[in-house]
Amino acid sequence: MEDYLTPDPLWCITQTSLAPEETKHYEGLLTQGSGYLHLRGSYEEGLAAAPQDETYMRMPANVTVEVPRHPRSKAGTYLPGVTGQHPLLREEVVNLPNPLAMTVRCQGRTLDMDSGDIFEFSRTLDLRDGVLHRRFCWRLPLGELRCDFTRFVSQARPGLIVQRMDFCASSPMTVTLDATVDETVTTNGYCHFRTTEPCAQGQAFGVTVTTDNGDTVTLMSRCQGAPASVSANRGTLELCCGAGVPVRIDRLTLVSCSRDPQPRDAQALAAELETLCAAPDALYAPHAAVWQQLWEKSGVIIRGDDQAQFALNVSLYHLLRAANRNDSRVAVCAKGFAGEAYFGHFFWDTELYLLPFFLYTNPAIARSLTRFRIGTLDGARENAAAYGYPGAKYAWESSVTGAEQCPNWQYCDHEVHITADVVFGLWHDWKATGDRAFLEEMLPVLTETTRYWLARVQHHPDGTVHLNGVMGPDEYICMCNDSAYTNTMVRYALRVTREAGALLGKSLLTANEQEQAAYVEEHLVIPRREDGMIWQCEAFDRYEDPDFTSLWPDRTKRFGAVVSQERNYRTKALKQADVLMLPYLFPDTMDARQLQQTYDYYYPLTTHDSSLSYIIHAIVKARMGDAEEAYSLFEKALAIDLDGGAAEGIHIANCGGIWQGVVMGFCGMDWCYCRDDLHFTPHLPAHWQEVSFRIVWHGAAHRIRVTHDGVSVEEDDQ
Amino acid sequence: MEDYLTPDPLWCITQTSLAPEETKHYEGLLTQGSGYLHLRGSYEEGLAAAPQDETYMRMPANVTVEVPRHPRSKAGTYLPGVTGQHPLLREEVVNLPNPLAMTVRCQGRTLDMDSGDIFEFSRTLDLRDGVLHRRFCWRLPLGELRCDFTRFVSQARPGLIVQRMDFCASSPMTVTLDATVDETVTTNGYCHFRTTEPCAQGQAFGVTVTTDNGDTVTLMSRCQGAPASVSANRGTLELCCGAGVPVRIDRLTLVSCSRDPQPRDAQALAAELETLCAAPDALYAPHAAVWQQLWEKSGVIIRGDDQAQFALNVSLYHLLRAANRNDSRVAVCAKGFAGEAYFGHFFWDTELYLLPFFLYTNPAIARSLTRFRIGTLDGARENAAAYGYPGAKYAWESSVTGAEQCPNWQYCDHEVHITADVVFGLWHDWKATGDRAFLEEMLPVLTETTRYWLARVQHHPDGTVHLNGVMGPDEYICMCNDSAYTNTMVRYALRVTREAGALLGKSLLTANEQEQAAYVEEHLVIPRREDGMIWQCEAFDRYEDPDFTSLWPDRTKRFGAVVSQERNYRTKALKQADVLMLPYLFPDTMDARQLQQTYDYYYPLTTHDSSLSYIIHAIVKARMGDAEEAYSLFEKALAIDLDGGAAEGIHIANCGGIWQGVVMGFCGMDWCYCRDDLHFTPHLPAHWQEVSFRIVWHGAAHRIRVTHDGVSVEEDDQ
Repeated sequence: MEDYLTPDPLWCITQTSLAPEETKHYEGLLTQGSGYLHLRGSYEEGLAAAPQDETYMRMPANVTVEVPRHPRSKAGTYLPGVTGQHPLLREEVVNLPNPLAMTVRCQGRTLDMDSGDIFEFSRTLDLRDGVLHRRFCWRLPLGELRCDFTRFVSQARPGLIVQRMDFCASSPMTVTLDATVDETVTTNGYCHFRTTEPCAQGQAFGVTVTTDNGDTVTLMSRCQGAPASVSANRGTLELCCGAGVPVRIDRLTLVSCSRDPQPRDAQALAAELETLCAAPDALYAPHAAVWQQLWEKSGVIIRGDDQAQFALNVSLYHLLRAANRNDSRVAVCAKGFAGEAYFGHFFWDTELYLLPFFLYTNPAIARSLTRFRIGTLDGARENAAAYGYPGAKYAWESSVTGAEQCPNWQYCDHEVHITADVVFGLWHDWKATGDRAFLEEMLPVLTETTRYWLARVQHHPDGTVHLNGVMGPDEYICMCNDSAYTNTMVRYALRVTREAGALLGKSLLTANEQEQAAYVEEHLVIPRREDGMIWQCEAFDRYEDPDFTSLWPDRTKRFGAVVSQERNYRTKALKQADVLMLPYLFPDTMDARQLQQTYDYYYPLTTHDSSLSYIIHAIVKARMGDAEEAYSLFEKALAIDLDGGAAEGIHIANCGGIWQGVVMGFCGMDWCYCRDDLHFTPHLPAHWQEVSFRIVWHGAAHRIRVTHDGVSVEEDDQ
Repeated sequence: MEDYLTPDPLWCITQTSLAPEETKHYEGLLTQGSGYLHLRGSYEEGLAAAPQDETYMRMPANVTVEVPRHPRSKAGTYLPGVTGQHPLLREEVVNLPNPLAMTVRCQGRTLDMDSGDIFEFSRTLDLRDGVLHRRFCWRLPLGELRCDFTRFVSQARPGLIVQRMDFCASSPMTVTLDATVDETVTTNGYCHFRTTEPCAQGQAFGVTVTTDNGDTVTLMSRCQGAPASVSANRGTLELCCGAGVPVRIDRLTLVSCSRDPQPRDAQALAAELETLCAAPDALYAPHAAVWQQLWEKSGVIIRGDDQAQFALNVSLYHLLRAANRNDSRVAVCAKGFAGEAYFGHFFWDTELYLLPFFLYTNPAIARSLTRFRIGTLDGARENAAAYGYPGAKYAWESSVTGAEQCPNWQYCDHEVHITADVVFGLWHDWKATGDRAFLEEMLPVLTETTRYWLARVQHHPDGTVHLNGVMGPDEYICMCNDSAYTNTMVRYALRVTREAGALLGKSLLTANEQEQAAYVEEHLVIPRREDGMIWQCEAFDRYEDPDFTSLWPDRTKRFGAVVSQERNYRTKALKQADVLMLPYLFPDTMDARQLQQTYDYYYPLTTHDSSLSYIIHAIVKARMGDAEEAYSLFEKALAIDLDGGAAEGIHIANCGGIWQGVVMGFCGMDWCYCRDDLHFTPHLPAHWQEVSFRIVWHGAAHRIRVTHDGVSVEEDDQ
């Protein structure tokens, strides 16, 4: 493990401040993971001021304007798919026992980044290999102790955590390391463990927990480098550090759960740890090799803009970390498994924000995401039935079974566009891969969601068809009729269902259903102003002007946090892009003049309270040809996680959006469902010299180079 | 106490069945109280199958369609104003330690109405004096024990509970009575007691509890009639019953709380009990005298309809029981303090359903209710400020401080008509009493609510004024613009505020505010169909037809329980009378033809899922002259509590509505705010021979007799 990469500021997130208000942000931002397992970037020894065992009742609320708990620090250990039942928040991904935990004591002091005399502190997460380095010096009564901690979650063995602690003392001292797998943790203040069994197996120690959803997880640790005194879930090491003599401790942890194809128990993990501990140095290279492959497939190089390059690297790192390459029983949760804010639920982010990045760079990962929707069709069927409809209604906040988990009715009841978004995502996969077997595989979803729409729409005597009582992407209009986005998506879903039937020469719908579906596809109303501009919904003009000047003087706060929900719901204020999603996703929706008119109408009404907002506006503006204005919006998107916003987890949809911003926005790539050939209409910011990246198009990989002079496309032979 | 009244079926609720599914209903229906203190009609010894100490998390939900907990039995002891803070449901009236509790043991058995061998069982609540009698025979291995239990909550000493237990054994046996004040109780599954101090003082025993809102309550009991062995919160009596020899035990309990003008501690209560126990027989007469006065003022006699007479008696009993005559710091909660379903909160029921009965029969009690609103103006100011408005916004569900307690945002955010309803109620009081000092007293409420409306409405460029994003009385339209009911009430509130200013020759509003208010009063839109019919709200015709035939085949269930809220919210289905409130409250709103048209339009859309619905339709129909149809709707209202519906408490608003049904509906009395003279336009059902009652009009009492031949009005000299 002496082969760590040489730090490169474009590829390293570096923390040099110990400011208490930044700790939690860095915990989110420095999250490490392997798709299978994710760890927030907390200090191994925790903070005395931030107990992790607090229990409290987190209420269902508007997450956008909620004030989160745990102001100082929140450790997080997540296995996507391992969930528990919260009494108020419904199913949530469980924060598992913390496998990094240890206390470090020396000369009667306990190491604490808050209260200790710490200097020369820095932390660096290398995005190229996902290794987190912490270096600092601890001033003690009788000398100084230099500490150099590194850790990574292995991409080669996704349940393996590798930690290394290097110490060097200025004068002889004894350091006591007390390592454990801390099971006194809660998820959103709730303890999900039905059973907790601490154990010791030879030199290994750890714990097995069973969640209230019946998942069992075992975490076993073993330390190497000095004699350890091991008891149930505890290993204690006394390190005699001579002056200037380096002392090295390695700690390996293995995690297994009952959802694994081959779950292993504490004994099996202990045996495997014994083998691995024989050669800990051998663990880094295969891990780094996987990361290298991921970057080769998905990396984007922007010449001329270090800021954008760095932010893009951070985004792609988290996308590649968060996605599970081998397991379509889970997707990527809204916080990228880097926090508990959205309970580990799966949203429309999956199809609209995440999927394009994977589809065009690593279709195998994309397939995990689309298969997740096919695999949860039964849950969607149950959702439809619960609302009194036939067919399938995809959950606004999906559990691992597809069952609706959103604790706020206005979203889960009314934000029905998710059901069309899912079909849109499946179709996107088919158009990107041309995989006919997959087209067949998705047919039940197309069929069942069509049945839902046929029951959900309303036919008017004048022959028009309406979709009433819905919420569009803009969540600041609570309930409306004929959301333009929703109805466009539904029409698209019905169209591709029809096309899929034609392509496969079969349909699971009856002739009568097919006829009805064709009618709805044609007659579902897209509301328009007299001059043809698309209204966000029926009677949108009847909403009140938001009067931002008086209501929202302090723009450092979110609009939703300074206005009452009641007033918000009756104004035209938008949380995020809504109608403007349409010209991006379906460029045929409007011509340039209409687009300009639409942008000019909605943009001033938009609060961007949602992290999904800026990037869409940036893309639309770029595709309108205004690269400079687009860039200033793009910068807002780049700042969302980097500028202190990662405390509760990563805004993973925005990460996917940032890739789209570069490739679909500035480089102007056309969607594979809109045209068959790979095509770009770039509008690069003036200071960008070149953007290069890899695109998979209909199964073939291409290397793209975009400059101000043009676009080059080369086959990629990988 | 041998002077109990001779039972009269028109004046007695009698239970003869021990069917388990009826127990809870009778507990609600047989609730006793003194305004100050209320006790559900539970068996003193409880039911083994119904533990009262269960803790669970009741969730904020739609109370109308919720499935309540405690299927078998729920004891309830309430002091209006003594509240606790529930973590989810906000402030709620606290279920206090049960002062009736005792176990009765004999021959190794414990008395239990479920499992015991009980025969000749009956319970009777006499509505004339509020005394509850239970008689039954308990078959034991070696004989039978006849039991005759009575109890009442004293109207003469409102914190006093008087219990009497008469036993008579068929053969010699020893009966052990174990009396306690059971503090192991919860409110909606939650324990609100911060401290619990059981104590004994001489022969008295009991408990002092402190709620999580800081209220302290002491309940002390003392038994009389046999030697008692007393310990902390327990008195045990061994009764040696000879064959055929009656044995009598009296138990007195005194309750005091920190909200009392002069709170008394356990010692003071014990001393008072000692005095009272010297002559328990003397306690009944003064109590019965108060009830007699209440009935003389407020009773209504219907000749020719025993069913209606009985149901009316039940309703008036609960109204008279529930209202506090001396304390305007509380009003009457939605369940009449006979259950926990609505958490002891105060709704618009107060002004629209309860107030008229009291205003026209016992204005002093009415004044407690109207003063409650004046006294909670500060809470209403805080509500307005919390939503970002000036002035005062009355709470949809008011706490004792006026602070909003509704846990569901759609109601508290949008059902703003309450704020106008409060002003309407105050004005009603002024018009009924002509009390100029009170007009002055209410001025701050008129002023502050006007300020709220001025900020809450929306001016359109065409000069019209709108009130957007509201919910009217019909809670099945979640959020609409220009609710006809709401806007009519707001216009009325602005009008009477203007009139009050003119009458008093002063206003607390600035000249500019007065000008604005006059403009809004004139221009606030009442939406109408092209032919002039009032729409419930803007674009009401755009809602979907409810299609009751397919959605609601089983009419024994509520519509709201069989349809998803999502679908309900986008249909025209009405929960209750909405537009039809208007021709009742403001007869000038529409002429006979318009009324017929309006009734014919809305009635078929109305589900009557709300208990507030039938009675309004009955009244409107009676005033339309269709007494027979009106009577069939009236019968539905009469059945609401009597037909098994009282399990979670009394539908107290409907009780007030039933009085209005007789007096305002069938007897056709005009409102005192509509005309100065007492005037009736009766439409009696054919089988009613005569209705007689007492009406206070502008401070003078009148005896009214209504027959098919006409109306006689005589001065009442009481």
